[in-house]
Amino acid sequence: MATLIQQNLQSKNAEFASKFDKGHLALPPAKSYLVVTCMDARIDPAAAFGIDLGDAHVIRNAGANARDSLRSIVISQQLLGTKEILLVKHTGCGMLTFRNEDARALAEKNLGSHIKSEVEALDFQPFPELEEAVRKDVQWLKEQALVIPGIPISGWVYEVETGKARQIV
Amino acid sequence: MATLIQQNLQSKNAEFASKFDKGHLALPPAKSYLVVTCMDARIDPAAAFGIDLGDAHVIRNAGANARDSLRSIVISQQLLGTKEILLVKHTGCGMLTFRNEDARALAEKNLGSHIKSEVEALDFQPFPELEEAVRKDVQWLKEQALVIPGIPISGWVYEVETGKARQIV
Repeated sequence: MATLIQQNLQSKNAEFASKFDKGHLALPPAKSYLVVTCMDARIDPAAAFGIDLGDAHVIRNAGANARDSLRSIVISQQLLGTKEILLVKHTGCGMLTFRNEDARALAEKNLGSHIKSEVEALDFQPFPELEEAVRKDVQWLKEQALVIPGIPISGWVYEVETGKARQIV
Repeated sequence: MATLIQQNLQSKNAEFASKFDKGHLALPPAKSYLVVTCMDARIDPAAAFGIDLGDAHVIRNAGANARDSLRSIVISQQLLGTKEILLVKHTGCGMLTFRNEDARALAEKNLGSHIKSEVEALDFQPFPELEEAVRKDVQWLKEQALVIPGIPISGWVYEVETGKARQIV
């Protein structure tokens, strides 16, 4: 028995597929770039960042985190030819609202103390200051031996209140 | 000096922001679910899976990989209240086209042999069969002590050739 969320995907996708005319697009991104941004529900990267279907890889996780993205970035660059990275964090990010010890206490309370060792091993990677976090992640990417050296890596802040993006670095 | 890709983001975003009227949306996803899908350039999750702005977290990486998503899923569930997971892999995925040793050899050839130890330590997590990979990742998520037990976790295949999504598990 499908859940309401599963039914929503099925019905909306049937409508989408009935008008779909982009089945010819190639696997490698046509504009050879990749975007790293947050999983936040208030971000629609295609609309907000002007990404046409087929143009760019889009990596998303909690906080637009560079470390979590490394495997995907190496695959994007080495196997699918992308040559530029845009990293976009955003105002009002959940990652600005807690510390590791808060998240660990919450998970242990909700899931039970048997998960203590697993949750202690997990770095949730929150950050206390937005623009500094953008700069740090861009710098981290530039220092990775597995990332192509010398390519453009820019860092941005997207404002969920206004829809505006501004370049930080 | 902005690259053409950076200029594209700036000009398209200015147009987007000039019509933006969703600045009131709350941080927690309104429909309390999350989608894990691939970074592939041919996927627009909002359009293809019927996700309205503000409704769901969207996690994306190479291959819609469950392991890479764990930190984000725990944050989504424990701090932002999501209660259902949809994992969507797709036809024509790059992850079906190589083995770990191929990716390692390519990276070493392109980046230089000084990255050998780093690339050897990286599991690119390719998969040889699509539907089996969907089932395995759903099963893996269900077995994680850090994922809320008993919630609906469904697995899907999206066809980049037709725009159609079908439920596998």
